[in-house]
Amino acid sequence: MSLNKERRIGRLAVMMLLDDDKERTLEIVKELGWTTCTGKVGSMEASKVVAAIETAARKNEIVKTGVYREGHALYHAIIEALHGVTRGQVQLGSVLRTVGLSFAIVRGEPYDSSEEGEWIAVSLYGTIGAPMKGAEHETIGLGINHI
Amino acid sequence: MSLNKERRIGRLAVMMLLDDDKERTLEIVKELGWTTCTGKVGSMEASKVVAAIETAARKNEIVKTGVYREGHALYHAIIEALHGVTRGQVQLGSVLRTVGLSFAIVRGEPYDSSEEGEWIAVSLYGTIGAPMKGAEHETIGLGINHI
Amino acid sequence: MSLNKERRIGRLAVMMLLDDDKERTLEIVKELGWTTCTGKVGSMEASKVVAAIETAARKNEIVKTGVYREGHALYHAIIEALHGVTRGQVQLGSVLRTVGLSFAIVRGEPYDSSEEGEWIAVSLYGTIGAPMKGAEHETIGLGINHI
Amino acid sequence: MSLNKERRIGRLAVMMLLDDDKERTLEIVKELGWTTCTGKVGSMEASKVVAAIETAARKNEIVKTGVYREGHALYHAIIEALHGVTRGQVQLGSVLRTVGLSFAIVRGEPYDSSEEGEWIAVSLYGTIGAPMKGAEHETIGLGINHI
Amino acid sequence: MSLNKERRIGRLAVMMLLDDDKERTLEIVKELGWTTCTGKVGSMEASKVVAAIETAARKNEIVKTGVYREGHALYHAIIEALHGVTRGQVQLGSVLRTVGLSFAIVRGEPYDSSEEGEWIAVSLYGTIGAPMKGAEHETIGLGINHI
Amino acid sequence: MSLNKERRIGRLAVMMLLDDDKERTLEIVKELGWTTCTGKVGSMEASKVVAAIETAARKNEIVKTGVYREGHALYHAIIEALHGVTRGQVQLGSVLRTVGLSFAIVRGEPYDSSEEGEWIAVSLYGTIGAPMKGAEHETIGLGINHI
Repeated sequence: MSLNKERRIGRLAVMMLLDDDKERTLEIVKELGWTTCTGKVGSMEASKVVAAIETAARKNEIVKTGVYREGHALYHAIIEALHGVTRGQVQLGSVLRTVGLSFAIVRGEPYDSSEEGEWIAVSLYGTIGAPMKGAEHETIGLGINHI
Repeated sequence: MSLNKERRIGRLAVMMLLDDDKERTLEIVKELGWTTCTGKVGSMEASKVVAAIETAARKNEIVKTGVYREGHALYHAIIEALHGVTRGQVQLGSVLRTVGLSFAIVRGEPYDSSEEGEWIAVSLYGTIGAPMKGAEHETIGLGINHI
Repeated sequence: MSLNKERRIGRLAVMMLLDDDKERTLEIVKELGWTTCTGKVGSMEASKVVAAIETAARKNEIVKTGVYREGHALYHAIIEALHGVTRGQVQLGSVLRTVGLSFAIVRGEPYDSSEEGEWIAVSLYGTIGAPMKGAEHETIGLGINHI
Repeated sequence: MSLNKERRIGRLAVMMLLDDDKERTLEIVKELGWTTCTGKVGSMEASKVVAAIETAARKNEIVKTGVYREGHALYHAIIEALHGVTRGQVQLGSVLRTVGLSFAIVRGEPYDSSEEGEWIAVSLYGTIGAPMKGAEHETIGLGINHI
Repeated sequence: MSLNKERRIGRLAVMMLLDDDKERTLEIVKELGWTTCTGKVGSMEASKVVAAIETAARKNEIVKTGVYREGHALYHAIIEALHGVTRGQVQLGSVLRTVGLSFAIVRGEPYDSSEEGEWIAVSLYGTIGAPMKGAEHETIGLGINHI
Repeated sequence: MSLNKERRIGRLAVMMLLDDDKERTLEIVKELGWTTCTGKVGSMEASKVVAAIETAARKNEIVKTGVYREGHALYHAIIEALHGVTRGQVQLGSVLRTVGLSFAIVRGEPYDSSEEGEWIAVSLYGTIGAPMKGAEHETIGLGINHI
């Protein structure tokens, strides 16, 4: 059941955001036959970050609308990614900080064994800081779940 | 005081671990005149992950041994990176999970203004899971602090 | 000072919500000479869940209005119950989720020794999920405190 | 995709532990064609609680040994249940407390729509307190995940 | 039910540790007819901090040995104080840090109304840092509970 | 690099709030050549507490306006202090509680070695409780960071 080196879904999800040559990563994901999308969201409300990712995932048919099972898998992947971004309390405006984030969602089969089925990765990269231009540093998060 | 695009210290710290061409990232960091090092640590004890990174940082003279100020900056960057890795409780073996991680430490000046001084970034990338071969998925973490 | 098997206040508080025959549980609580009440609350705001339980406790004279000591005991029991419901961050709408909960409050003497005095149990049972019909699963929580 | 009232998997998992007539609950679960098991574990180490539940789940073939996907679903259900038990920090002996718990694992299809597939529920009920006979109160936890 | 200015139990518990003239604070506490004690504990294990305070409280008869109700009140006050000391995760050695702490326990009636009864305050003051001489800064914590 | 006994910045920050003779503490801080200020804030929103302290720090020139490095150091000291005040979740109104706090900010050199440079301490003292007059107890918090 080992993780296939060419199919490291988490690494690919992060590279979708960090790679200078994003097309290259996108191509790898496409060649694997996986689904993916990216987007941007800036907000002082964590709920808006969650909503933006959920909406993008549905619109791009990465998760099936109306199937809770898939929404549940995605939701937990998002919240786990937010832990990396917020590092302690999953709170933004309520502790007077804001984020400007890019996100990527990747759905595919990262394991050798077909029994392991599909997994979903949500990556976040951007800045977090005070609601003041420039008063911010980078932040990253990754959540992975079976779907 | 804005973050300089070419000097995104967090992105560079993560690329040190994810890039296929790690030499390329290392070169960019070196050209900026920054200090950096990478290493690996696998453990069921979070304290061993902390210790491995602290030791590497001192041995590679990224932080000054015997100066608490620098150790304090590094420590918080490590713990913040561990939040991304553990996503909830900064615990490994005590909740029956283990990690196999690569880490990078980068120290440099990511902001345009010289007043912003030096910052330190700690990135972690690898797997987290049950203490059983293959029962694991990827995980990432990034901590950034002024130093 | 052992916990009396017939007086397991936490079990009774949960059975008030789960038992098919709720009257049976209510009767047991009444026969013990304890006070209890139940209610329902649905919200995206954790503060509204807290308020609904506090109001029910006061209106049903389970805690004495105007005595902070009792309010303090109740408050911590509620927050502890919410930890079970939220499992990580005591947040609802701020991480884009909502709850539909039944609650029970039971006040009585669960220990053999009279020195142990009165305790209060708050139980929560219902669903948690996305603010979308059906996108939810069950959740439970129990908080117990001396009063 | 609504939750079927007769198939409330969380409620059934908790009733497996609380019902006076445990056979009755077991029969309901069996009639639904679902798999389930119960067990007991007492420890000052959270990792032992996790291990006991994982072992029981594998031995009773509720999850498939060697399939990480299933182990991953179970693990997160266990940790979520432990949040209800520990209410704040998923720690036992490290903050000088111990638990004596019964647990139940139930796997089945709680939703009307077959698309929602199988879910797993882990329930915990027992006592938590100081490592001193009688210095304890009840505690409960429930974790639910898609599998 | 307001907090009496002369009887601010939390302030007194902290002053027992910080005041240059500790005798003066002790005298005030004694004049109020309250019970108190102080002690010291240094450890990399949070459980040892808890144990040291619990033992001191029993030995000095601030809480009644064998009465769980009192032990429960004290335990939660200790853990709350530890939140202030650890600021995030109630962990020490497991995240490679250690504490050297003084503690004070004060039991008394801080409210005007006699209905509010007795409360207990646990204060902690000292240093937290790396297990390396001098690599540490100050830390404080206060927990207050009804007893 | 040891902490100088006369320059315990955390103790001084707390004494600024607790000492009967606040002038005495202020004098000590001034004699050390350090900068400091105090203020008050009452709110159900943690973000307002953060904002009040940040504003005071800038207005009193304890941190340099427009230098993110300094704002970053201050922000983390504030959040750490709030951990002591909230003891678990850095939330106020969202879990139906409110605070009335005094705060002090002190900036100076607490270590013998000049290499250790400047540090900042944020102390909070006041009451936390239900949004109801008198339904509150004391709370304290201290955050310390290198700056």
